[in-house]
Formats: sequence, structure tokens, C-alpha cells
Amino acid sequence: MRGFKIAISGKGGVGKTTIAGTLAFIYESDNKNVLVVDADPNANIASVLGISYDQFLKITPISEMKKLIQERTGAEPGTYGVLFKMNPKVDDIPDKYCYKLNKIKLLIMGTVKKGGTGCVCPENVLLKRLMSHLILRRGEVVIMDMVAGVEHLGRATASAVDALIIVVEPGQRSIQTAFTIKKLAGEIGLKKIYIILNKVRSKGEEELLKNKLEDFKILGTINFSEKIRLSDLSNKIPFEVDKKFVQELKNIKEQLDKKIIKIDF
Amino acid sequence: MRGFKIAISGKGGVGKTTIAGTLAFIYESDNKNVLVVDADPNANIASVLGISYDQFLKITPISEMKKLIQERTGAEPGTYGVLFKMNPKVDDIPDKYCYKLNKIKLLIMGTVKKGGTGCVCPENVLLKRLMSHLILRRGEVVIMDMVAGVEHLGRATASAVDALIIVVEPGQRSIQTAFTIKKLAGEIGLKKIYIILNKVRSKGEEELLKNKLEDFKILGTINFSEKIRLSDLSNKIPFEVDKKFVQELKNIKEQLDKKIIKIDF
Repeated sequence: MRGFKIAISGKGGVGKTTIAGTLAFIYESDNKNVLVVDADPNANIASVLGISYDQFLKITPISEMKKLIQERTGAEPGTYGVLFKMNPKVDDIPDKYCYKLNKIKLLIMGTVKKGGTGCVCPENVLLKRLMSHLILRRGEVVIMDMVAGVEHLGRATASAVDALIIVVEPGQRSIQTAFTIKKLAGEIGLKKIYIILNKVRSKGEEELLKNKLEDFKILGTINFSEKIRLSDLSNKIPFEVDKKFVQELKNIKEQLDKKIIKIDF
Repeated sequence: MRGFKIAISGKGGVGKTTIAGTLAFIYESDNKNVLVVDADPNANIASVLGISYDQFLKITPISEMKKLIQERTGAEPGTYGVLFKMNPKVDDIPDKYCYKLNKIKLLIMGTVKKGGTGCVCPENVLLKRLMSHLILRRGEVVIMDMVAGVEHLGRATASAVDALIIVVEPGQRSIQTAFTIKKLAGEIGLKKIYIILNKVRSKGEEELLKNKLEDFKILGTINFSEKIRLSDLSNKIPFEVDKKFVQELKNIKEQLDKKIIKIDF
């Protein structure tokens, strides 16, 4: 199977980051090389991957690449070609900007450096370009953990992904966000849009969500897990604390792989 | 007590919107006039206030005010003075832009209209200006429900508020977001920063949060409520479904009022 890029989206707090980080471990255990991109200015996937906060603070964000490119080339911001090839490969991303964890690499978009200094539009432009040009080898997977809500779809940060996954929890506001994301994602040309139902507490809730979301392709359901909820408080890695949760996500990954293979033909 | 403005901030999914909407009802039952501002481009406070999705879709967002001002005055975007006075009062905000619910008015910032059309920076600039100039009468309260995460602090959208409330749930990522918000909020000159602990499931969790957040002023604790969780799924108004939750938030409001009064002297 060729390499592919996916983005994880949804309302705040639905479990995007937990799912993105655990999917990274699942693909790694499947012998894939995984590039995880934290596209939230309030980056927080590091802990899900077992990277300590101190280690996380040492990661240079993607936004700094711009400076480096300028320093080394004197080129205008936005010009590529020296540090990155015009069509960069995952291996071309300098180690300085990645945290490496066996077969997983973590890139961080960059945060708000100081209050009142402005938006993170430039960071989104840089990330969008990087994602568009990144050429993947066989067995490479890119997982983007998007910021909560819908603004990233105005910015089209994830326009180059093969599939957009929307995480939905049992709640009308989460469902409404899914519909808004679907509409906006269609407008930036994303055709492969899938749903993961998360934190489901009963068959009744699952049925209600499926009825409301009958216009979507649903990859599968993850039941609410107290172990996963507690993992955030105790700084444990979700992938290691709950086998049932991991198995549910493995089933979802199998469904996703089938959809991705279909894209090839 | 003079009028005041507060903003509710925090990681996605911690309960900002539920708390903001319920606070609005609590202040209303206290005979205050309340202006609720949904500052999230993925606006969703309407349902918490009991406004149906169809009614919500008819609300003209603040971002449209710009067009109206231009149409009526031919003035450059960003110029005030005709439709709004230079120092507008809550009553000056045209009814067209508000949904009225007894003593509560709801304003919506505006969303991403089409995928790929850009960020919501202009909407944030307009909202920031409106909030800065808004003069409150006695007994008027403005509650801003901020977008998840930290980008709004780069934009300083809420720089004119009297108090910033950060909602924290039991989780390290929510705690880290609180620290990031505190740092950035300090940099835009916000001095009154308070914490509400939400969705707490045990005394142990409460103690853990209080230890981690000892640098903050904590207004109070709201315990996890299954009724409140279900209210989102069944489209019920949180203020009406759980008396214990409302009482906990009333206690928090009492604490907040004391802090606000202190600001006066």
C-alpha cells in the first residue's frame, strides 16, 4: 500500500488527540513509518505519545523552519528548494524539527508565542504547503491532529490529505460540528470524509448517532473508557492502558485501510 | 454593582459553553441584563440557551455588521460612528444582530463561510473593537464564550474583559492549557484570571487539580453530572435539568461577584 495522509478533526474535547496518537502506535505496530503532525497551536499530542512536557518544550515548531530557510538561503519567506527539495520526502525533514520515537516522528506546528502578537495564519500557510508537497514512500503514514472546531477549514490547512476523519461524541453540538466540517471540507475538495463515534456509553447512544449521521460513512465505534479518561490525568499513554480501546481503534484502522486502498484504484 | 465583562476560556470540551450559557441564566435570574457573545467560529452556545438550530441559523453574525456599516455610510471597514456610537452601549447593538431571550441577548461572531476562504481574523478584530468600546450600565453583564485553545489570546479578542475565567477538567492537557492561557493573558494585560474546576468525579481529583493549580485563584468546583452530559444529546437546557449543577455554579458566581466588586475599589 502506498503512503497516505489523514487528518483528525472535530469539536473540542471529542478525543481527536487521543485517537490520533493511538492510531500512530497502531500503524507503527503494523510496521509503518508514521509522521504525526500536531496542527493545534495549543499542541498537546506529545503526552499521548508518552513524550514528557519537558521534552515537548524542546521540540522546535515547524514555524521556525521558515527562519532557518531564510537564514541559510537568504530567500524570501515561503520559498522552498534549498533545505527542502521542492517535493520533500519525510526523510528530508530535518531531525531538529522532529521528535523521534522509534518509527514515529512528531512535528509541531507552533504556538502563540506571546499574547496579543497575532494569529497563527503564517504557521498554517507553512504547514499547508509542507503537507501539499510531502511525497510519501510505501508504508509511510502521515496523521495530522487538527485544532478544535472549523477555522482550519477556512485556512484549508489539511487540503492535501487523502482522508479526513471527524470524531463525534454523543452530543448535538459535536454532531453539528461534523456537518459544518463536512460542508467546508467538501468546498476545499476533500472527498474522503469519515466518522469515528467516540465515548459512546450505550447501544442507544450509538443508534442515535448513527441515525443523525446517516449521510456520513462511519468507520466504527469506540466505547467510553474510564481508563482512557484517567490516562490524561495520570499522564499515561492511552495505547498502553486499555486493550479494549486499542482493539476498537484497530478495527477502525482496518476499515480505514480498506477505504484508502480503494482510493488507489 | 457596575456592569462588567467576563470571558470563558479553556481547552476544547471542558464545558466552556455550558458554563457560559448557564451563567447567563443565573445572572438573568439575579435581575441582570446579560449580553452573551459566542466568539467561536464554530458557534454552539445557542442550544445551551434553548435556542433551536433553525432559529440560530437566522441570527446575523457580528461579522455582517461591517457590511452594514459600509453600506449605510460608505465608510472604510473598521470605521465606527454612525450605526454604532464611538462608545456604544448594549442597547445600541441593532436588534437585527441579537437574538433576544427575555433579559438575555445573544451575539454571534461569525463563522467560516466557505472552506478555503481564509481565517476569521477580521471577525476577531471587529469583535475585539466592539468589546473594547462597549460601555455597560449598572446591572449589565457581558459573557464571552471563547473558542477552544489559545489562538484567541494571540488575537487578544478578549483583551477588554474585567475577568478571564479558565475552565479546567481533570486532565493534564486541560491543566497545561490553563497555564498557557494564563501566560498569554498576562501578556495582553489581563490581571483578573480565575479557574473553575469542572466535571470533577471525586475529592481525589479535586485535590489533585487544586495542587497542580495552586498558582491560580480558584472560584469553585463543579462535579461531573450525567444529566448535564445527556442534556447536549437530548437538546435540553443545562440550566433546567440539574439543580445541583446550577447551585454549584451559583456558588461560583457569588465568588466571582466578590472579585468583581473588589475591582471597583
